[in-house]
Amino acid sequence: MRTPRLSVEITEVIEWRDGETRRAVDYLAAEEPLEIRIVAADGLVSPLSVTMRTPGNDLELAAGFLLTEGIIENAQQLASLRALTDENIGKSNVVEVEIANPDYDPASMQRNFFAASSCGICGKASIEAIRRRGLRAPNPKFRVSPEVLCSLSERLRDDQAIFEKTGGLHAAGLFTAAGELLQIREDIGRHNAVDKIVGWALLEKRLPLSESILMVSGRGGFELAQKAIAAGIPVMASVSAPSSLAVKLSRELGLTLVGFLRGSRFVVYSGGERCLEG
Amino acid sequence: MRTPRLSVEITEVIEWRDGETRRAVDYLAAEEPLEIRIVAADGLVSPLSVTMRTPGNDLELAAGFLLTEGIIENAQQLASLRALTDENIGKSNVVEVEIANPDYDPASMQRNFFAASSCGICGKASIEAIRRRGLRAPNPKFRVSPEVLCSLSERLRDDQAIFEKTGGLHAAGLFTAAGELLQIREDIGRHNAVDKIVGWALLEKRLPLSESILMVSGRGGFELAQKAIAAGIPVMASVSAPSSLAVKLSRELGLTLVGFLRGSRFVVYSGGERCLEG
Repeated sequence: MRTPRLSVEITEVIEWRDGETRRAVDYLAAEEPLEIRIVAADGLVSPLSVTMRTPGNDLELAAGFLLTEGIIENAQQLASLRALTDENIGKSNVVEVEIANPDYDPASMQRNFFAASSCGICGKASIEAIRRRGLRAPNPKFRVSPEVLCSLSERLRDDQAIFEKTGGLHAAGLFTAAGELLQIREDIGRHNAVDKIVGWALLEKRLPLSESILMVSGRGGFELAQKAIAAGIPVMASVSAPSSLAVKLSRELGLTLVGFLRGSRFVVYSGGERCLEG
Repeated sequence: MRTPRLSVEITEVIEWRDGETRRAVDYLAAEEPLEIRIVAADGLVSPLSVTMRTPGNDLELAAGFLLTEGIIENAQQLASLRALTDENIGKSNVVEVEIANPDYDPASMQRNFFAASSCGICGKASIEAIRRRGLRAPNPKFRVSPEVLCSLSERLRDDQAIFEKTGGLHAAGLFTAAGELLQIREDIGRHNAVDKIVGWALLEKRLPLSESILMVSGRGGFELAQKAIAAGIPVMASVSAPSSLAVKLSRELGLTLVGFLRGSRFVVYSGGERCLEG
């Protein structure tokens, strides 16, 4: 369940403390680019995106990204997935994905966004673009108790393998209503950590995640709320604050959004019926 | 010097604490998309990017983004800059930029990146792509004392206008070697906060920022180090950890990179001569 060791790099640094300097060894969260390439139904290969990520679980990252960004709609549209290793650099920083979505068009992501914004580009148009992808309210019957919610923050922190060493990684954890940890992923990019979780679920044929809670370190922005909804997750909780647009999106699409989840306190921004009743 | 009030939105929430719920009013960091459009020398308008940002200082954000991403190389190449207000939504989420860079090509950003990576896509290729933009080591003569460095973290926090209310914003502050705050900007996106700072300097004709320290909340990744170097900033400090690729880039291009700057302690990852000698 732990992210591989190669996600950490060791380097020599100088520490300054109260006027004294000393040489020390420091652990860094690894950051490398990952290119995702699409092989379309007609065999054409096109670059989709380059993202800076922490190496490890790259196939999950690619699969999750495709799903949460609406390039594919389900596991059936993912025909194959492979990491290309470059002999020259001895690394694999490219994932090639063969998709079986006849509607796929390399320009679709941008078009989707702009198509909805004839009234002007704004948060409302961004939400409309997500609605147009056919995404609907996650499981209305899911319930989690406030006490379980309060236990998640500590669980997430305890299970972060790399953060302890580097202090530089975001984590995303997937939990059951009973507070059981299903999976955890870490990355220098918050959105990558969530994509890795969703990609894991997609590859394990566990989508939609309609009985799960997604807990993220840091803040909860629009992009993360969108990814949670795309994966069918009913509750997203974050350690810190959400953004205005994440709150609007959650209210419109029926995601339970919880923020400032620390100790025995949290704030509910949307969908309180799933965590405050009964 | 403060970011405008419209960057904060007010909403009703439910707070849960130790078994008790209460309705409360909460302040949210505003998040809205901003589209940057380029008017090329031949008059053609093309969309460059859409970024989720906290509204406010949008012209600075656009100007800074163009410079730090290498679309323009100096203030002279920025012919005009204007925010387009959409009457339907009563907001301005589009900035149109007329540039006078004859070399500009809408596909250049992606090409720049891939051109350097004939050996494969990797961190080394990412650094090479930045070198190819002609960026060089920032001011080698700049010096700042450890004591001044230690004072910056608190100064940044004290001057954050919005964070106190929302808990949801990143800040970037620009300081002199004496620890004087030149400018501060806040945004839900760390990279946007830095672009706003650099854009402010560009519009004020203060580039390169060869006598300044950039202090950022949170972590210091590759993208931020790249932006600092593009603006000619010699020292970048962050409250939390840097990434492996930020350290490599800083060492190769001569940026002083400081992390974990809190209280009376910090860690130097690169360029210690600027802050540990004399």
